[in-house]
Amino acid sequence: MSKPYLIAPSILSADFARLGEEVDNVLEAGADVVHFDVMDNHYVPNLTFGAGVCKALKKYGIKAPIDVHLMVSPVDRLIGDFLEAGADIITFHPEASDHIDRSLQLIKAGGAKAGLVFNPATPLHYLDYVLDKVDQVLLMSVNPGFGGQKFIPMTLDKLRQARKIIDASGRDIRLEVDGGVGPANIREIAEAGADMFVAGSAIFGKPDYKAVITEMRSELAKVGSVEI
Amino acid sequence: MSKPYLIAPSILSADFARLGEEVDNVLEAGADVVHFDVMDNHYVPNLTFGAGVCKALKKYGIKAPIDVHLMVSPVDRLIGDFLEAGADIITFHPEASDHIDRSLQLIKAGGAKAGLVFNPATPLHYLDYVLDKVDQVLLMSVNPGFGGQKFIPMTLDKLRQARKIIDASGRDIRLEVDGGVGPANIREIAEAGADMFVAGSAIFGKPDYKAVITEMRSELAKVGSVEI
Amino acid sequence: MSKPYLIAPSILSADFARLGEEVDNVLEAGADVVHFDVMDNHYVPNLTFGAGVCKALKKYGIKAPIDVHLMVSPVDRLIGDFLEAGADIITFHPEASDHIDRSLQLIKAGGAKAGLVFNPATPLHYLDYVLDKVDQVLLMSVNPGFGGQKFIPMTLDKLRQARKIIDASGRDIRLEVDGGVGPANIREIAEAGADMFVAGSAIFGKPDYKAVITEMRSELAKVGSVEI
Amino acid sequence: MSKPYLIAPSILSADFARLGEEVDNVLEAGADVVHFDVMDNHYVPNLTFGAGVCKALKKYGIKAPIDVHLMVSPVDRLIGDFLEAGADIITFHPEASDHIDRSLQLIKAGGAKAGLVFNPATPLHYLDYVLDKVDQVLLMSVNPGFGGQKFIPMTLDKLRQARKIIDASGRDIRLEVDGGVGPANIREIAEAGADMFVAGSAIFGKPDYKAVITEMRSELAKVGSVEI
Amino acid sequence: MSKPYLIAPSILSADFARLGEEVDNVLEAGADVVHFDVMDNHYVPNLTFGAGVCKALKKYGIKAPIDVHLMVSPVDRLIGDFLEAGADIITFHPEASDHIDRSLQLIKAGGAKAGLVFNPATPLHYLDYVLDKVDQVLLMSVNPGFGGQKFIPMTLDKLRQARKIIDASGRDIRLEVDGGVGPANIREIAEAGADMFVAGSAIFGKPDYKAVITEMRSELAKVGSVEI
Amino acid sequence: MSKPYLIAPSILSADFARLGEEVDNVLEAGADVVHFDVMDNHYVPNLTFGAGVCKALKKYGIKAPIDVHLMVSPVDRLIGDFLEAGADIITFHPEASDHIDRSLQLIKAGGAKAGLVFNPATPLHYLDYVLDKVDQVLLMSVNPGFGGQKFIPMTLDKLRQARKIIDASGRDIRLEVDGGVGPANIREIAEAGADMFVAGSAIFGKPDYKAVITEMRSELAKVGSVEI
Repeated sequence: MSKPYLIAPSILSADFARLGEEVDNVLEAGADVVHFDVMDNHYVPNLTFGAGVCKALKKYGIKAPIDVHLMVSPVDRLIGDFLEAGADIITFHPEASDHIDRSLQLIKAGGAKAGLVFNPATPLHYLDYVLDKVDQVLLMSVNPGFGGQKFIPMTLDKLRQARKIIDASGRDIRLEVDGGVGPANIREIAEAGADMFVAGSAIFGKPDYKAVITEMRSELAKVGSVEI
Repeated sequence: MSKPYLIAPSILSADFARLGEEVDNVLEAGADVVHFDVMDNHYVPNLTFGAGVCKALKKYGIKAPIDVHLMVSPVDRLIGDFLEAGADIITFHPEASDHIDRSLQLIKAGGAKAGLVFNPATPLHYLDYVLDKVDQVLLMSVNPGFGGQKFIPMTLDKLRQARKIIDASGRDIRLEVDGGVGPANIREIAEAGADMFVAGSAIFGKPDYKAVITEMRSELAKVGSVEI
Repeated sequence: MSKPYLIAPSILSADFARLGEEVDNVLEAGADVVHFDVMDNHYVPNLTFGAGVCKALKKYGIKAPIDVHLMVSPVDRLIGDFLEAGADIITFHPEASDHIDRSLQLIKAGGAKAGLVFNPATPLHYLDYVLDKVDQVLLMSVNPGFGGQKFIPMTLDKLRQARKIIDASGRDIRLEVDGGVGPANIREIAEAGADMFVAGSAIFGKPDYKAVITEMRSELAKVGSVEI
Repeated sequence: MSKPYLIAPSILSADFARLGEEVDNVLEAGADVVHFDVMDNHYVPNLTFGAGVCKALKKYGIKAPIDVHLMVSPVDRLIGDFLEAGADIITFHPEASDHIDRSLQLIKAGGAKAGLVFNPATPLHYLDYVLDKVDQVLLMSVNPGFGGQKFIPMTLDKLRQARKIIDASGRDIRLEVDGGVGPANIREIAEAGADMFVAGSAIFGKPDYKAVITEMRSELAKVGSVEI
Repeated sequence: MSKPYLIAPSILSADFARLGEEVDNVLEAGADVVHFDVMDNHYVPNLTFGAGVCKALKKYGIKAPIDVHLMVSPVDRLIGDFLEAGADIITFHPEASDHIDRSLQLIKAGGAKAGLVFNPATPLHYLDYVLDKVDQVLLMSVNPGFGGQKFIPMTLDKLRQARKIIDASGRDIRLEVDGGVGPANIREIAEAGADMFVAGSAIFGKPDYKAVITEMRSELAKVGSVEI
Repeated sequence: MSKPYLIAPSILSADFARLGEEVDNVLEAGADVVHFDVMDNHYVPNLTFGAGVCKALKKYGIKAPIDVHLMVSPVDRLIGDFLEAGADIITFHPEASDHIDRSLQLIKAGGAKAGLVFNPATPLHYLDYVLDKVDQVLLMSVNPGFGGQKFIPMTLDKLRQARKIIDASGRDIRLEVDGGVGPANIREIAEAGADMFVAGSAIFGKPDYKAVITEMRSELAKVGSVEI
């Protein structure tokens, strides 16, 4: 059985003066999921946007799932805000919560999918005892919250290891990657095991969103679908 | 000599899916300044939006001054972000900076106007030795970061005292008020000494922004202009 | 019109293996209020007890008011716990809450009396804009959370100033004092303006609680009642 | 050679108005150890009780060992308080101490047994280089500090892995479990490797402590004793 | 009666490769006190040096008093370190200690003189209830921990007010000033009420320490001695 | 191919009144590297010295590499200070940085060698995904920041495991050890895999630095050189 690759443009790179329109455009251009980078100026040195913006997009009529990546610490109060705002997926960094299992339970009890995010240097062992509560594993291929970075090559090895762990669990868990992903390297990344791809300026930085997304999909088509 | 009253709608209550348009509309409806409520989920229990949104509005072409109220701690790193994003006025809470004078200097060195914000219970003595570096004093008439509150009556006394301090200094300092301000009480608040008025849902919560702002202005007209 | 002096033994010095009995005994010996010292090992270098113990005393059947002194930071979450546990009075340190007015509102909305506590060096100006929300002012006459201290003499001056502020407000606000209070100095302290007295080891450290409390009352009788 | 299973009622669920009596009763009912849940409202969202209560129980005459579980951060100052109060066993969370080896040394230098506590999601690798300083390993089968939770099934796998690590070390280390343990599942938990069982409301929430403890013991008898 | 002005070179600007020699030289050049700027990279964005360096200077044989300015938070643990290292005067910022009176008591109990330091914007009311425990008041005339700043003119007014408070107390309290002080402005600063002057690069940045200090003294001579 | 063992005296134990001379002496006595222990009173309970002292030594003319061990949290701002001061090697604790990969990149982008430091209880898995960015691995054989400790025997096993990881990587990575190292145990430590040795009081606490270092070298000679 197979499941499709997912392309998740990060609205961090969109035009915030007309965000609804931007999201409409990128979804029409073929994107699957709206990726939402929440930064609090404490866990990372930047402050972006919170649940109010998520709620506005839902009210605006966005149908695609909203995938919220919390780069904040602590996480539990904001999890509540985003659940109420209608977030579909919520992921957080294990180092940012004193009670990881509890935070995962909070998300799932609120009806959203839950995931853990791994910084480039963060070991994968945080998955050891929560694989039954995780719907998504997000590997950062750059350091979150800092600008102008390139895809960290060590991520490919890490993707292969994460893929093994997920496959061995027999569970339906997405393996997402975020940072420096674009048409030039998406095939290699997919071959290492990723099946969900965040892209920010690679999409919103180009005039023709559809052209980029189509190029990504044609690269992915060379890999084949993901077996599950 | 007199200077005009300023009305500063808080975009916290605007529709974030089409923010540029919302701001255009409220300025056309007669608003003077765009008020920008930045919350970091640490100084207050909410996370709103950061300098990226400010930059987007500037790029969109907003001509009115952007008045950034930092409900964050610490403040210095974000001051830099907002200066770079083109903020015109930046205010912060004295309790939120270990080095208040330094933070004021940072703002002014970056070319923006600087101000201090006082929580409802915060005494005014933080003004004692920085009046020469302050362009604006913002008195909160509700507790920042919490929803559904009414104008705290004690604020009227506090406005009268702040007005005395400002007038005694002989300096050109705006006295702003934020929280539960609307057509029903704006006259009384102006009579107590305020000359700049933040309003969020009182404006954006109504279908006709112009009607509300016009009503506020006609109330203010009963007070007369501010003598300086 | 007059109101009686109140004696509030601190259970910090009671025997925790039989706390209900201890409280029964001290109330039978003439105490008016049960004083409850909550420390969290962050605001002060000690950890004592929380709302569970308060709830247990209420369930046990204690009828006297429970006067909770929060030596914790932050305060809002524990305010909720103590309201639910049935606390009658809740006081906190202004330096320990980012949003003092909000914390006072929380307490009063929960049906309890609210107060602010002043460390020996803390200036009284925190009262400037919240006198209408304060039912009690507690002046520490030792540093909270540290053992083996004596009554700090400067407290007498501070009591006189606090008394003036309270009287000028025309409001019904208790002026409580805590630290090194006993039969030997209670008269002098009352003369300086206090009308509510916390005593810990001065009462629980003696075999006959009634003797100590009676001695305190006879000292207070020399001052006369408090005019209100 | 074998060693007995230990049952450790958590006094968190006991009646604090008559704690000495409660502890007497539960020990007469067959409990082995008094379990002591210390929460500081920082590491977990609750504040319970500190070393003063431990000292009171020792003074009251409790002979059974007191097993202190610190749900606090940082840990070193409170370790000192509990050593002075006569605690027999002190355990803490590795994430809550910057210097885990040092904290373990502090406990042992003070004459108590030392242990590490693992949250449900915490990997076991924190044991890698301190097995020679650990007398007890406590696996949380619920998230500490939050009410109303059920035994997390993944704990059984984790117990089996912890049991292997302990047995491989050849050291005399207790494997304790805490959270949602009762007569209905104690046998399964023991079979997975636990040899010390915390129970709170499962015991103190029932009218007849002896009946519950006897039921637990008869379930354990079906497993056999622990080989060491 | 009069007391002499004191000149206190800050070793922050000295050559740390040969610190003993530097201090010898500056004392021979006429300095009265060795000023010691301790920064911890938390209260201020810089880390300088701690009690070990103080101890080394004492062991080296420095006879002049060492005046330790703690730009750290929290303060109590380092107060202990500096007392043990032989510090003669220890000052700290009131905002940096939760228990100001307690920290002052710690210093005095350890045999050193105690003082409070006021940032440029910090109001003087922190002196209200501790004047009997303060031997020294230090007004910062620049923001501590940041380089390349000039003397803030508002400090002159603040010095006049601090001088009044000190004189009204009738106590023997030094009024020290730190930041941008040099031969060009020391007379004006002394006239405003200061009687102890910190200078860093103004002294150590010049080849001839004696020339600078002599110039300062001749400026001070124009003011006359301090009446006490 | 082989590379020499390196001996790195920690200046923490040197005489700070004449630091340049001390460092000259210890280098003449045969030391290879100057080890620099930076403590901030937050990550460890002590405050030592910062980048200013490093800069002074460079200016003084020290030619040997300066090896900076940051016992601070957070680390990024101080990394910048030490790069500017001319540090040659900078190491930090993985638990002390939210963004380990980013901090390593900062160091290397600044032209210095980068390393991670492992507390006695810290597992080695933090190396999993950053071996390509690490020039040095430092294993603490005592707990940093606390005085009077002995070499922790478990470190020998940990050294053997770290050696395996390094050798398997095929990279040129130094394996340093710090804490309780001296002539009596240096051979055993080298046999376990270390090739760089920090010693503080073992060298500076003795009158004849050369004698100690020579003794260490002769012990190391019995092991043979390190194969790379």
